[in-house]
Amino acid sequence: MTLKSISVKDVDINGGLLGEKNELVREKVIPYQWQALNDELPNTEPSHAIENFKIAAGEAEGEFKGMVFQDSDVAKWLEAVAYQLATNPDSELEKTADEVIDLIAKAQQPDGYLNTYYIIEAPDKRWQDLEECHELYCAGHMIEAAVAYYQATGKKKLLDVVCRFADHIDQTFGPQEDKLQGYPGHQEIELALVKLYRVTDEERYLNLAKFFIDERGKEPHYFDLEWEERGKTTYWPDFRSLTEDKTYHQSDRPVREQEVAKGHAVRAVYMYSGMADIAAETGDQSLVEACERLWANTTQKQMYITGGIGSSGYGEAFSFDYDLPNDTAYAETCAAIGLMFWAHRMLHLDLDSQYADVMERALYNGVLSGMSQDGEKFFYVNPLEVWPEACEERKDKEHVKPTRQKWFGCACCPPNIARLLASIGEYIYSTDEQAAYIHLYTASVTEFEIDGTSVELDQETDYPWDENITITVNPREEVEFTLALRIPDWCESAELKVNGRTLELDSIIDNGYVEVNRSWSKGDQIELVLAMPVKRVYSNPKLRENVGKVALQRGPIIYCLEEADNGNNLPAISLPQDKELTVEYKDDLLDGVTVIKGQGYKIANSEDKLYSTTDYQKEPIKIKAVPYFAWDNRELGEMLVWLREGN
Amino acid sequence: MTLKSISVKDVDINGGLLGEKNELVREKVIPYQWQALNDELPNTEPSHAIENFKIAAGEAEGEFKGMVFQDSDVAKWLEAVAYQLATNPDSELEKTADEVIDLIAKAQQPDGYLNTYYIIEAPDKRWQDLEECHELYCAGHMIEAAVAYYQATGKKKLLDVVCRFADHIDQTFGPQEDKLQGYPGHQEIELALVKLYRVTDEERYLNLAKFFIDERGKEPHYFDLEWEERGKTTYWPDFRSLTEDKTYHQSDRPVREQEVAKGHAVRAVYMYSGMADIAAETGDQSLVEACERLWANTTQKQMYITGGIGSSGYGEAFSFDYDLPNDTAYAETCAAIGLMFWAHRMLHLDLDSQYADVMERALYNGVLSGMSQDGEKFFYVNPLEVWPEACEERKDKEHVKPTRQKWFGCACCPPNIARLLASIGEYIYSTDEQAAYIHLYTASVTEFEIDGTSVELDQETDYPWDENITITVNPREEVEFTLALRIPDWCESAELKVNGRTLELDSIIDNGYVEVNRSWSKGDQIELVLAMPVKRVYSNPKLRENVGKVALQRGPIIYCLEEADNGNNLPAISLPQDKELTVEYKDDLLDGVTVIKGQGYKIANSEDKLYSTTDYQKEPIKIKAVPYFAWDNRELGEMLVWLREGN
Repeated sequence: MTLKSISVKDVDINGGLLGEKNELVREKVIPYQWQALNDELPNTEPSHAIENFKIAAGEAEGEFKGMVFQDSDVAKWLEAVAYQLATNPDSELEKTADEVIDLIAKAQQPDGYLNTYYIIEAPDKRWQDLEECHELYCAGHMIEAAVAYYQATGKKKLLDVVCRFADHIDQTFGPQEDKLQGYPGHQEIELALVKLYRVTDEERYLNLAKFFIDERGKEPHYFDLEWEERGKTTYWPDFRSLTEDKTYHQSDRPVREQEVAKGHAVRAVYMYSGMADIAAETGDQSLVEACERLWANTTQKQMYITGGIGSSGYGEAFSFDYDLPNDTAYAETCAAIGLMFWAHRMLHLDLDSQYADVMERALYNGVLSGMSQDGEKFFYVNPLEVWPEACEERKDKEHVKPTRQKWFGCACCPPNIARLLASIGEYIYSTDEQAAYIHLYTASVTEFEIDGTSVELDQETDYPWDENITITVNPREEVEFTLALRIPDWCESAELKVNGRTLELDSIIDNGYVEVNRSWSKGDQIELVLAMPVKRVYSNPKLRENVGKVALQRGPIIYCLEEADNGNNLPAISLPQDKELTVEYKDDLLDGVTVIKGQGYKIANSEDKLYSTTDYQKEPIKIKAVPYFAWDNRELGEMLVWLREGN
Repeated sequence: MTLKSISVKDVDINGGLLGEKNELVREKVIPYQWQALNDELPNTEPSHAIENFKIAAGEAEGEFKGMVFQDSDVAKWLEAVAYQLATNPDSELEKTADEVIDLIAKAQQPDGYLNTYYIIEAPDKRWQDLEECHELYCAGHMIEAAVAYYQATGKKKLLDVVCRFADHIDQTFGPQEDKLQGYPGHQEIELALVKLYRVTDEERYLNLAKFFIDERGKEPHYFDLEWEERGKTTYWPDFRSLTEDKTYHQSDRPVREQEVAKGHAVRAVYMYSGMADIAAETGDQSLVEACERLWANTTQKQMYITGGIGSSGYGEAFSFDYDLPNDTAYAETCAAIGLMFWAHRMLHLDLDSQYADVMERALYNGVLSGMSQDGEKFFYVNPLEVWPEACEERKDKEHVKPTRQKWFGCACCPPNIARLLASIGEYIYSTDEQAAYIHLYTASVTEFEIDGTSVELDQETDYPWDENITITVNPREEVEFTLALRIPDWCESAELKVNGRTLELDSIIDNGYVEVNRSWSKGDQIELVLAMPVKRVYSNPKLRENVGKVALQRGPIIYCLEEADNGNNLPAISLPQDKELTVEYKDDLLDGVTVIKGQGYKIANSEDKLYSTTDYQKEPIKIKAVPYFAWDNRELGEMLVWLREGN
């Protein structure tokens, strides 16, 4: 069986929350980020990213400015544009994109090399600081953009550019003595090279990806050798003590020997994604095992309930098992996105709903939280508890912003969320020879071919707010295949009818997917009900931070309290275990969300003393919880996911 | 009325917990620290402090090593020795001290200047970096040592040395145009100069102290001026961004305009102590008001239940109101000691038990916690919750050591705790013309004169373990005076008998002191019972960290749970509100402590999942709490002060 996701091109998300977000990306985010890349946003740190390409292309004069990896912002934006063009042709946007591609092509050096920092600032220093300077990382992003743009438009110009660049990299790196045995300090190119291999069928790209993965963590350590070689210079003096620890970039040991997720979280999940890709292509079981081990550790010991990963601000990194502080959480938006990438790949290695469950958890919570309702402000860091005053006053919380920012000096997250949401269609369906699989529920139409027959699937639902999903199957002609529907981990009671007849699910569920095998005719209808009562979720008590606390979840959505609804000092609120919680869809709130309401208690401040032997009085209060992803779209205030439980 | 504390010389602490600690300082701590100062401790960072003096005195060759304020460790050790010699003559120790004093005198420069760093390393750079280089701070400690040594032994050599030095400082600093209008970057000399004034009666020392206080925070800012003047060099490049913020050293505004406690906590409380001293001598009401305002802020909004202050690791500083995290607490031992200094002075400005209450709270908790049972290991940082693994793994907890250390590169705390405990006799009693006051209860005998009559007070008690205190009054001849006994804030039920007759306390209590006025004859006996049931203490709910939690206190002692008694994962334990707590004195535990026992619950780990909708099972467990100050005297493990309350 070769399980393949149905491409973004063949999925029309025609409504619902994901539809709105997808549209937001198209209408607002992509134009907004184009302004950002061109330094046209008022009162924000200029990006200089397009200007860097102009200078490198000889169209402008000046110095390189911005992060050493600034090129990647342009690449990620182009990739987002490509996914949009795939589903929503837009000649003006395509023209802009083509012009950017022309510019990129013009910046490319005769030998194929392409990186504006080195072209402008240090042409003689290429490939001397792989550890710190992101050349291979930027190359990876440009390759991903090129593949997406080619797939969306059929245009090959950027694909040719990156093939020349990849060939140059292939001539530079490899096991041969006259090549460098290096690998990236920030992983990303591995998964990109697999994509390039898939679209070009050139095995050398797959082999290069494999080389980078296999070489990683060998001794003598490449980063030590190049450090000596280049005269012990550092691009990031302030971070040297951090990056010296080789777990930071997961190169402390060969990848197959890595037992737990460590170091910079985005680097980690990009690498794991690349490992899964290579395993999928080569069948390398040792990589599969490493991925499974790291997956279990990441998702069962180091993941926030929101799908956020990387709890440590220092190093934007994983901490250690069960260390998931809420108020100093890092949980970078990019890391949750990377977790989705990885989950999607694991799902295609081994069809098990646990992967789709995590993918969905990250999407609706730790990823969507990264962008404001208006698409113009972003969280880099996604805490689960915010006291704005503490973010301002406390050094150990300085990475936690209590409100989304318009742009960042290091702006990796905004274009990452744009490309993820623009490509979200790709995460919904997969097919293999005998079956079609629905991983995510969202209003959408797709078309695929099975056993030579074209089949349209029409998914109607207001998921994640509504528990009812209706799927109409429209094959060109009657055809037998299995339609497999994921039953999410949060759902304890699912009901499925086919053409009005209820199926007994227990006997047809496999790895979390209900498999309906039949001969399908035009107009066959599946009604799936994924019961969505409000759930009280508890942490494993080893996660000390959350002991005695409860989080609220409905469907895939994790909820939070905001000061706007519940007053200040949210930690003084407790939720009794026995009181009913009700839900209400509020059309006029936060672009339309379902809220959870209930009765809680708040400790009243009866006296001014700091310590007292009198227990403080509790007063009953009404509490209102909103989806976590939608927090901070009103006035600045406190936010809390994990509530104290008790009377 | 002039309230004066009875000097350490006239108080014999003859037993009990404070007696043991005092003896420990004499028998173990002072010899141990002498080894440390002479670099004779195996496997610890060498101090080099005595060696620096030898080099400065021309008795050795070499470079200055250690902190720029290394001299102060010698001074604080000498001061501790002085207090010990005052109560326990020891000719050998005195000989050692005299030799150190000879060495110090030899290091002193012809013009009176004395600081080994500048003498050895930068004789041409004196007084050019007051902000960063601790010259006046070291001078202050040497003055304190000299005053204590003179008072203890009557020997004037070191006093003469510091007078010459103080005169040199007085010639260097002052309002006159040819002098520097500077002041210390680390306050300390202010309170020292008042001590020197009191012992020498030289008003210029008081005026100089006042000058330093009055000048502080004026604009243009002296630290900016000297920074320009010395060519913008910095001694501490890594800390420049920290110290640039002038709240760090409380010089952001004049002291009388300071509203809340901010910045480096030790600097703050040393300064406040100096302000209180000057107010006591000059009657300056504006300083009194500033002290009272800062006191209210410190103790009612920024103090841990242990008397620890300065919750922020960054800058060893105050954070902001109600921000008192338990697991990243700084709560430096020196800051709790400084809080005692300040409290003691406030008490003598205004006899109100709130000051003695804080003094006692800090002493029995956040100060005593700074030293191990054997007197050879020290906490610099005193957290209220420790998970050793997190201290090791988490950058934001790297200042929190899960176990006491043998010594420190910056070793301010160990000799500070030594001098505080060696001088603890001074904190117990005060007198004025008509009355004697008992602030702290501890087995001790003192003698004082009142109305021309010598009176001996003999306090018998096993406080803080026992609630019974018997005080025998032995005047040389019958004399009328008031004996005022503090009723601690933690005590809700006190009983007092004089010669067997119970007094009605309500009518004779004033500012927290019960005043017994009578004509006293030899053998008159007071029996005071300060009922010590176990108290459940709650935080003000604005202190978010502790909402829903409870701390246990008995008498002045704050309790904690340790892993050694309660297993690991202490946060999983909860204490029900309705179950009885019992106490037991354990002779064989931690040098003899009273423990608190009760029935609690611990959340059991029934499954491996990170998140679950099944509430975890609770199992009943026996809990045992030990005094906070005695934690970490067994195997390495977790510790927790604030327990979840609930069933």
